[in-house]
Amino acid sequence: MSERPLILISNDDGVSAKGLRELTEVMRLFGDVLVVAPDGHRSGMSNAITVDHPIRLIKTVDEEGYQVYKCSGTPVDCVKLAFNQLLDRYPDFVVSGINHGSNSSISVVYSGTMGAALEGCIHGIPSIGFSLNDYEPEADFSRAKIYVARVFQQVAENGLPPFVCLNVNIPKGDVKGVKVCRQTSGKWVEEFDKRTDPHKREYYWMAGSFQNFEEEVDGTDIAALENGYVSVVPVNADMTCYQTFDSMKSWRF
Amino acid sequence: MSERPLILISNDDGVSAKGLRELTEVMRLFGDVLVVAPDGHRSGMSNAITVDHPIRLIKTVDEEGYQVYKCSGTPVDCVKLAFNQLLDRYPDFVVSGINHGSNSSISVVYSGTMGAALEGCIHGIPSIGFSLNDYEPEADFSRAKIYVARVFQQVAENGLPPFVCLNVNIPKGDVKGVKVCRQTSGKWVEEFDKRTDPHKREYYWMAGSFQNFEEEVDGTDIAALENGYVSVVPVNADMTCYQTFDSMKSWRF
Repeated sequence: MSERPLILISNDDGVSAKGLRELTEVMRLFGDVLVVAPDGHRSGMSNAITVDHPIRLIKTVDEEGYQVYKCSGTPVDCVKLAFNQLLDRYPDFVVSGINHGSNSSISVVYSGTMGAALEGCIHGIPSIGFSLNDYEPEADFSRAKIYVARVFQQVAENGLPPFVCLNVNIPKGDVKGVKVCRQTSGKWVEEFDKRTDPHKREYYWMAGSFQNFEEEVDGTDIAALENGYVSVVPVNADMTCYQTFDSMKSWRF
Repeated sequence: MSERPLILISNDDGVSAKGLRELTEVMRLFGDVLVVAPDGHRSGMSNAITVDHPIRLIKTVDEEGYQVYKCSGTPVDCVKLAFNQLLDRYPDFVVSGINHGSNSSISVVYSGTMGAALEGCIHGIPSIGFSLNDYEPEADFSRAKIYVARVFQQVAENGLPPFVCLNVNIPKGDVKGVKVCRQTSGKWVEEFDKRTDPHKREYYWMAGSFQNFEEEVDGTDIAALENGYVSVVPVNADMTCYQTFDSMKSWRF
């Protein structure tokens, strides 16, 4: 049996995305790699799971210490299938990405890339989602990969508490350093594009713009990104808002 | 203009689900109601949004103070479409459910019903997801509806902080009362059912069993439910794990 760590990789841009290939290249330096990724785009799939349809899974690469599967399901389906069907034991790490485009602020909630990372930490495995603040399919990941390696090494050295994963966003250009941040308060405001198909039936395309509730506030992930720093946000799978308990004590049900 | 509050309703079991009809019946006592719900099952859709396909939206009921739309998208799509395309102003409340089956513990992360509620609070609207701990399509919601009304009235009276919604789970049988709880620590362990189709290609059905990491611990939502109480968990759209900041101070990137 190999003594190298076993690393599970997924993403939401699909198995053919450049970001996934670049992440795989970095991770193969550190361990044996199993890639299980969607067979196409699954952006915005969040923590969705497929319970109403059957799921297909096809092996596309089978080398010593390096296997790739493509999956018809969501990023979380990929992680669950790897755990239950493809591996004899839990992997040592789950890494997801590198996403084409930022998952800072509230985007963490919608991101399939972060869905895969969150699934990893729910099972107690140190897990990281990586995103580059560049949506281009042919984005340049060369600088990003240096910081992917750095953050991974810190996680390998220090571990992460169970139920906590990292949301790592990397700026597009030069990088000044790494900052541990909190999630910026903000929302996506949708502007649906309403069209009429050739059969005279209406349909909508979702489009949106981001609204930042706290421009340039120090300590937020967006401020870090905008100032050229990699943002690292610890993300909690326990969504309880403990601060709200006190104000609810006076409620009379 | 009506002075009654405006209440947006969605769910993930679809527009035809009994739980949605029952919730609508309760909410129409309190205000004008707009229902925008998926045109079929969207269980496990989490906070997923539809960015890769067009979305269809069809009006099925148009009465004074009561409209219903069915939508081809996810629960979050429904809420976003209502905000952007169907309403002149934000609704006063977003309520989601009543889900057929519990969304306690880690299920909050996968639930489309909770996805709709979370979307509401991200936009600053007091929002509640309701679930009954009974998966039957013809479940008896009569007792549940009393507690739906009670929790809704408390939210109407006290409000909720922005970025915080409520995850309300209601036991199947008799109800002893209501408890404000935290999310139980636990995970779903998948047991995929691997089959072969008539064309000799393999496929998988997701199935799972819940593993509770803290059996019968007081203050958790599952303990409340199992002891006959309605569990009310305040859920935070800020997923930052602030407790992890301290331990990350020593990290050297």
